[in-house]
Amino acid sequence: MVKTDIGYTTIDSIVVRGLDLSKEIIGKFDFVDMIYHTTFERLPTAREKIMVNAILVTTADHGITPSSLAARLTYAGAPEAMQAAVAAGLLGAGSVFLGTMQNAAEMLTEAARELGPDAGDEAVRDAARELIRRYKQERRALYGVGHPIHVNGDPRVATLRELSRAHDYYGVHWRLMDAVSQVLSAESKKNLPVNAVGAIASIIADMELDPMVARGLALVGRSAGLLAHLMEERKQPIGRAAWELVLQDDPRNQVP
Amino acid sequence: MVKTDIGYTTIDSIVVRGLDLSKEIIGKFDFVDMIYHTTFERLPTAREKIMVNAILVTTADHGITPSSLAARLTYAGAPEAMQAAVAAGLLGAGSVFLGTMQNAAEMLTEAARELGPDAGDEAVRDAARELIRRYKQERRALYGVGHPIHVNGDPRVATLRELSRAHDYYGVHWRLMDAVSQVLSAESKKNLPVNAVGAIASIIADMELDPMVARGLALVGRSAGLLAHLMEERKQPIGRAAWELVLQDDPRNQVP
Amino acid sequence: MVKTDIGYTTIDSIVVRGLDLSKEIIGKFDFVDMIYHTTFERLPTAREKIMVNAILVTTADHGITPSSLAARLTYAGAPEAMQAAVAAGLLGAGSVFLGTMQNAAEMLTEAARELGPDAGDEAVRDAARELIRRYKQERRALYGVGHPIHVNGDPRVATLRELSRAHDYYGVHWRLMDAVSQVLSAESKKNLPVNAVGAIASIIADMELDPMVARGLALVGRSAGLLAHLMEERKQPIGRAAWELVLQDDPRNQVP
Amino acid sequence: MVKTDIGYTTIDSIVVRGLDLSKEIIGKFDFVDMIYHTTFERLPTAREKIMVNAILVTTADHGITPSSLAARLTYAGAPEAMQAAVAAGLLGAGSVFLGTMQNAAEMLTEAARELGPDAGDEAVRDAARELIRRYKQERRALYGVGHPIHVNGDPRVATLRELSRAHDYYGVHWRLMDAVSQVLSAESKKNLPVNAVGAIASIIADMELDPMVARGLALVGRSAGLLAHLMEERKQPIGRAAWELVLQDDPRNQVP
Repeated sequence: MVKTDIGYTTIDSIVVRGLDLSKEIIGKFDFVDMIYHTTFERLPTAREKIMVNAILVTTADHGITPSSLAARLTYAGAPEAMQAAVAAGLLGAGSVFLGTMQNAAEMLTEAARELGPDAGDEAVRDAARELIRRYKQERRALYGVGHPIHVNGDPRVATLRELSRAHDYYGVHWRLMDAVSQVLSAESKKNLPVNAVGAIASIIADMELDPMVARGLALVGRSAGLLAHLMEERKQPIGRAAWELVLQDDPRNQVP
Repeated sequence: MVKTDIGYTTIDSIVVRGLDLSKEIIGKFDFVDMIYHTTFERLPTAREKIMVNAILVTTADHGITPSSLAARLTYAGAPEAMQAAVAAGLLGAGSVFLGTMQNAAEMLTEAARELGPDAGDEAVRDAARELIRRYKQERRALYGVGHPIHVNGDPRVATLRELSRAHDYYGVHWRLMDAVSQVLSAESKKNLPVNAVGAIASIIADMELDPMVARGLALVGRSAGLLAHLMEERKQPIGRAAWELVLQDDPRNQVP
Repeated sequence: MVKTDIGYTTIDSIVVRGLDLSKEIIGKFDFVDMIYHTTFERLPTAREKIMVNAILVTTADHGITPSSLAARLTYAGAPEAMQAAVAAGLLGAGSVFLGTMQNAAEMLTEAARELGPDAGDEAVRDAARELIRRYKQERRALYGVGHPIHVNGDPRVATLRELSRAHDYYGVHWRLMDAVSQVLSAESKKNLPVNAVGAIASIIADMELDPMVARGLALVGRSAGLLAHLMEERKQPIGRAAWELVLQDDPRNQVP
Repeated sequence: MVKTDIGYTTIDSIVVRGLDLSKEIIGKFDFVDMIYHTTFERLPTAREKIMVNAILVTTADHGITPSSLAARLTYAGAPEAMQAAVAAGLLGAGSVFLGTMQNAAEMLTEAARELGPDAGDEAVRDAARELIRRYKQERRALYGVGHPIHVNGDPRVATLRELSRAHDYYGVHWRLMDAVSQVLSAESKKNLPVNAVGAIASIIADMELDPMVARGLALVGRSAGLLAHLMEERKQPIGRAAWELVLQDDPRNQVP
């Protein structure tokens, strides 16, 4: 039988995870409650809700990104299909931008598997060293450190770390992430601070959520940011100007 | 200059609509605050927040839909790119499913333009008649009435209507939508109750939001529902079985 | 029964439009044969094949476009999912770029409905005038004329017109398109020559193909162009540099 | 400088890989010539053209697939944005369906690196054994063998193998692929014949093309198949019926 445990529909009701959508959910659950209810079959605790809101807010947006640019370029061609522009803005959420929160959370979850919650600092540091060694050997890039623009430190990280501490989510994964940054900076003699990807991956892992949830929440948050960009694009378009700017960077192209 | 008013990024800060993301937003705004801040440059009132949460919750999901099926079929082929599955699930949010909330809100906004907020019932009914007449003449389908499954009435509508009344958003657009349903049912001698699309479009219009926000919020809500589906698809896949079910419906196809 | 007339699959064969894929199609049909076979249930004539190849070649690519930029920005984030980058590059093929070939072909097909194939020049010109008048009245933009870069004339059009003449596809739709450009240029006292969109729409209409085929072939052609861009993006990436270029255009953004 | 070697645009010309699109390409190149010209900077030989046509024809389509279903479900919701439906149909071309041709070509290219073109049968068989051993050890699924429907052998493979032999592309990668199937079938005592993915990956590798070209050509071919499906979906829709079929498979769902 092809069935989903998420829900079903009858002539006069819609049931989501055992609750009647119209009678027990709408007007009673807020959006984060609904995310937990559909995905995890339970409601979030107060501190879980705070952290999920922080993740959604952090991933929503911050100006011109590859994601908002792709969405605007798409909207410029097909303004009648705004959903296509949102989709285009999400499609790059892979192993390099945005989706990388999943990869980072997988990295931390796996590397911390043998560390108990009360692991000492030295054990955490050893796990970080071992993780770095293994990634170098496999010629893989480490996730969660460094930033092309915020070279002295990603400003979101301190806030997210404090928020995690305040709500008791600064656990072994956060500590491992911080240790990876410290060890790697020392070894490479470069400043490689934790970035927002590493912070959110740490939170997801310390909340004991599946790493895939990191990418999923980033997509939800970003889709809200893309809505803001596309509302603006309709009234004050920049997609076409951005294209012409890139075009003109190669002097062989002529733009009248 | 190619610039967005949404925000900008410096070496040590990210500014979103004039506020410092790290110092003034993360941990202080919840997700609906952030949607308002990035899209409308202000925070929502308490009752706006309740209504937006209700829209996000309503659009999140309800089991097997064309949207969740497209996402699952995509995930079955490319599990390493979950963002592509979410995008596939959003791409059908057009003029027939989901995105139709925008079309319905445009219909109501336009048709109510000459009705003041205190328009009498007869004036609203006349506007409904005129709207129906015009759509028939232009051979366009009316938005917001009838449902392929909930033939006796969409169970979400009563809840959304009550919630709107309770928070003073049962205004002229809601009244026009209800009148369209009544007039059309009487004229056609069929039961054509308001559906969830009509209810959400009414709310958006009575909240004085841009119709495009209806489609935008539906995409945000649905992306959360798709996360739940894809988490389940990974553990208890049904995408392939759904495909085989469809395949077998044509007896010329053989499935071993 | 859920069935498609395109084909079916048994344990030991695949049938496409009544032919055995392995025994009667692969190695015998070229790609344009296959397009005709699956879409139109017949093989193309020699001159149809020439025209379809010309359309695929014309739409394939020409450097930095909103489409190739969106694809490259997406690839930069998710190089492991090249199909997502191709999809992003296609999603903007709507009513403004690329997909507009469908809109233009619909415009020509509809406007030429009452012109016979042997309509005199004056009748064609009258139809063009009527078309322009109607679009102005409805405040719609005319399709197929003018170009943001090729302001003195789109270089592809003369070639496509000659090719159409040589293969007897310069018919009433092409003549109407040319007349629209002439009348509009005279009326507006601006030079508004036919563009590639108008030329391809004319070909599609004079080949008596469904307007939707115009957009469909543009997507097929463009997907090949995107392959070339993404192969290059992997070896000589410019997606990130394009992003930084746009970012730096607003001096509030800092890029180290 | 942000530039692409693929081409540039001036007021009165478009240059693609050094040739004038209007004067030297349109009407002179067919589509496969254009693919080679934009991607590889040269024209294909006659036998390369035959093989590329065979790949495009093979990947175009064969009835109800996850890809055509996702496209049709998307079209049902957004018929005004056919490009979104094509995109949805391509998005699943990942590591399990369709896009897997790239993974298989990478597998063959890597495993054959130390085999010369004249490697003896025993050396090829040893390489196959080593490949299988390594994949088992890494718990990875082997690409290119077995098929959920064509359990006795994929009917396309014999045709593609013959075509390869006829045009001198049955080289060391094809031989390795065939050996993998034989060794694996013997070891597992199951019949695990080469499938179309394995055949196309072998062709790509024996043509010395980049593995990414395999996925790219599959996307081009499939986009043509999706055009045929969407043309049919508009006239004889099955998307909604397919959805209801899946819905009804779970008896908790009610469909009137």
